[in-house]
Amino acid sequence: MTSTIETILSHRSIRKFTDQAIDAAQLESIVQAGLAASSSSMLQVVSIIRVTDKEKRQRLAHLAGDQPYVASAAEFLVFCMDYQRHFTINPQVNPDFTELTLIGAVDCGIMAQNCLLAAESLGLGGVYIGGLRSSAQEVDELLNLPQHSAVLFGLCLGHPDQAPQLKPRLPAKVIVHENQYQPLNLDDINEYDKTMQAYYASRSSNQKQSSWSQEVTSKLAGECRPHIKGYLNGKGLAKR
Amino acid sequence: MTSTIETILSHRSIRKFTDQAIDAAQLESIVQAGLAASSSSMLQVVSIIRVTDKEKRQRLAHLAGDQPYVASAAEFLVFCMDYQRHFTINPQVNPDFTELTLIGAVDCGIMAQNCLLAAESLGLGGVYIGGLRSSAQEVDELLNLPQHSAVLFGLCLGHPDQAPQLKPRLPAKVIVHENQYQPLNLDDINEYDKTMQAYYASRSSNQKQSSWSQEVTSKLAGECRPHIKGYLNGKGLAKR
Repeated sequence: MTSTIETILSHRSIRKFTDQAIDAAQLESIVQAGLAASSSSMLQVVSIIRVTDKEKRQRLAHLAGDQPYVASAAEFLVFCMDYQRHFTINPQVNPDFTELTLIGAVDCGIMAQNCLLAAESLGLGGVYIGGLRSSAQEVDELLNLPQHSAVLFGLCLGHPDQAPQLKPRLPAKVIVHENQYQPLNLDDINEYDKTMQAYYASRSSNQKQSSWSQEVTSKLAGECRPHIKGYLNGKGLAKR
Repeated sequence: MTSTIETILSHRSIRKFTDQAIDAAQLESIVQAGLAASSSSMLQVVSIIRVTDKEKRQRLAHLAGDQPYVASAAEFLVFCMDYQRHFTINPQVNPDFTELTLIGAVDCGIMAQNCLLAAESLGLGGVYIGGLRSSAQEVDELLNLPQHSAVLFGLCLGHPDQAPQLKPRLPAKVIVHENQYQPLNLDDINEYDKTMQAYYASRSSNQKQSSWSQEVTSKLAGECRPHIKGYLNGKGLAKR
């Protein structure tokens, strides 16, 4: 067990922060950790918008579906896929292939996770904010994103003011397959649902009577941000 | 500086491995590190196919564009977005929203980066293999992926048998913006191009005369895996 693995295994999403700022040297380390990430074909398609303006933070907290920690976290970083950089260098660049949107999303995930882990190793905490995509167009305009650049998610970082339990994950036997895809064993899901029912009923905040299956399949049976395709297409992305 | 940040900043892609296996306890730690990753709305939409079959590895090495380390690495993990799991639990689930493909790609990136960093902290090395998407349909069939599940990228892991230089990244002033998107300063790119020209000309393998701008804008001016949209749509993904 390395201290990196300990940091990784100790992850909890933190949504309550003290007022303490993240000092400049720590923030610099967090950013440098992000920059060190792998990048598909070295394209380097990520832009990070660090939002320090208090009014913009309040607005983003609202646009993310009223998540107050977007405003109260010491730092809020918005991860965007960004092909405008390459287009500026060479206007023959046309990033409208769906492939390039996949690259943008994967590379933002990799880079952001470096930032989050760097922060967690420093005793800080954070949470991803996919809710920005609920108001993608409005967030985009607020941050003045150009064509070929699209908002993906935010990352709150700060000094934790809560110590939530670890949230149980699906076990390795469900996630990891050998040599070929193995059909789901519903017994594994039933067992996990029991674990999650106990977790939801006993956790320190947002207690509820529910199971993992109920939670996720009800989300996925409805419409899931149906405006996202139009948003990306409008930015000249994911068109073909 | 924490040891996690040291691990992150020391990242190099490793493409040459010794014959030594990764021991079972280390592999278990790497997998558990992946499972501990954040997951959008706790959907848990990642499946990992661990490929141990030698013939499948050879075939994947070819399908990835003849990358021999896909066959020679101690471990090769294929990261897939997987909504078939949720569909099996509840057939009312319809994961054809583009939003859900974004979630799949971001969450695979986050989880895979946990695995890579866990491995690197153990003295192992690895490299992402986006090249699998060059033959997405063939890889999909080889791994027997069901509907609603799509291949994204692979990850080679093993004991390094090379010690490449650090590859210079775009500087923070290009990647990080404050409060709103800042137009690209081409002076920053010219400076970075000089750094990368020196890197490409002097690195231990695959030396070339080129700059970052030349490399990436020539890639992006052409077609970028134009079959990916059809592949995803065929899997019932990213349709609307």
